[in-house]
Amino acid sequence: MDAAAPTTPLEPTARTRVNRGRNRAVTDRAALLELLGDGLVAHLGVQVGDHPLVLPTAYAVDADGPDAEGTLYLHGSVAAHWLRSSMEATVCVTVTELDGLVAGRSAFHHSMNYRSAVVIGTARAVEDAAERRHALDLIVDHMLPGRSATLRASTRKELAATAVLAVPLREASMKARAGDPVDEDGDVAAGVWGGHLPVRRVIDAPVPAADNLPCAALPDHLLRRPTA
Amino acid sequence: MDAAAPTTPLEPTARTRVNRGRNRAVTDRAALLELLGDGLVAHLGVQVGDHPLVLPTAYAVDADGPDAEGTLYLHGSVAAHWLRSSMEATVCVTVTELDGLVAGRSAFHHSMNYRSAVVIGTARAVEDAAERRHALDLIVDHMLPGRSATLRASTRKELAATAVLAVPLREASMKARAGDPVDEDGDVAAGVWGGHLPVRRVIDAPVPAADNLPCAALPDHLLRRPTA
Repeated sequence: MDAAAPTTPLEPTARTRVNRGRNRAVTDRAALLELLGDGLVAHLGVQVGDHPLVLPTAYAVDADGPDAEGTLYLHGSVAAHWLRSSMEATVCVTVTELDGLVAGRSAFHHSMNYRSAVVIGTARAVEDAAERRHALDLIVDHMLPGRSATLRASTRKELAATAVLAVPLREASMKARAGDPVDEDGDVAAGVWGGHLPVRRVIDAPVPAADNLPCAALPDHLLRRPTA
Repeated sequence: MDAAAPTTPLEPTARTRVNRGRNRAVTDRAALLELLGDGLVAHLGVQVGDHPLVLPTAYAVDADGPDAEGTLYLHGSVAAHWLRSSMEATVCVTVTELDGLVAGRSAFHHSMNYRSAVVIGTARAVEDAAERRHALDLIVDHMLPGRSATLRASTRKELAATAVLAVPLREASMKARAGDPVDEDGDVAAGVWGGHLPVRRVIDAPVPAADNLPCAALPDHLLRRPTA
């Protein structure tokens, strides 16, 4: 990805164009990358036989990945049906952060404050050993920044049991809503209360596993995620 | 839904059977309904032309709805392409709650603690006026319990602009993971720290809209959602 890319506007195709609520479409690649950085779980959708399947999955983004606009990586067990179905298939990867509950003055104007990214593309099975290791490190570090460097190398057996998928960040769109409800003038004038309830994710302090040896010390990098 | 239904085990079909990590499959309908009660955002997947599309959406469940095992309701603008594509189509609705980040002693054993429900079914366009109003009330009340009874009735124009979809809770599966990492004995014996970081959602106190009249009083029911 070239140095200018983080500010390249998103260029939606017919598949990713935001058709509804265009005022909520975000066309700033930096905002997309920030959202993908904030999110922890992606929902991957793929057609499996006669039906769509949507499953939650960990992910990571490499803004300097092999695809011109950046690469989104997913992983899973090589035995997972959904993962095999996704390889070389067209997938949709959606990351949503819920930011608030919007209490409108009428049922119609209730809404949610959120940021949501939709990426559509062909999922490439990552075969190159170096790219696979890099992608898996990114996924661990996206969840727990700084952790991959502290872990032993994955074994050949572990790597063989893990499938890695790459989706280009080319066809991507983003929507966001923030702030107050947008109500009918008459409902506001009638004195009905409107507003929103902020929603946020809290990550608590690390809880040691029951089988930790007494000598197992909590590493400093695990103190980077907790928000409370 | 009959009175016994909340404890009816989930009966996965070939489409919803949990193929991977069967130890994480939950076959208790009460647990499914509890998760759907806890969640606020669903991810709806539908095949649109040559690609799947996954979008976040509000939802509600009527455990006593018209479908034998309960009904999941979604709504949106009648002008929304994804909603029109979903009508009478096979959709997948997934609700995921992230409960923790699992720091294994190796990259391979990193995981997340979560609960996830996957519902596959044909989305019925709800046309009956009473069912539409009921579903829309449920969706508002799922987000903000007690609110729908305090709002004016929706206008015919508002109702005409809103599409409501119903998905039977028949083909449903649930997966859940909780607690400690499950690591290789050698990594535990080596004294590497393992554990997890709990993740939770916090809803803050209501923030009034800038255009509230001075006389607009915060209604008590909006104090039921905040967790902090």
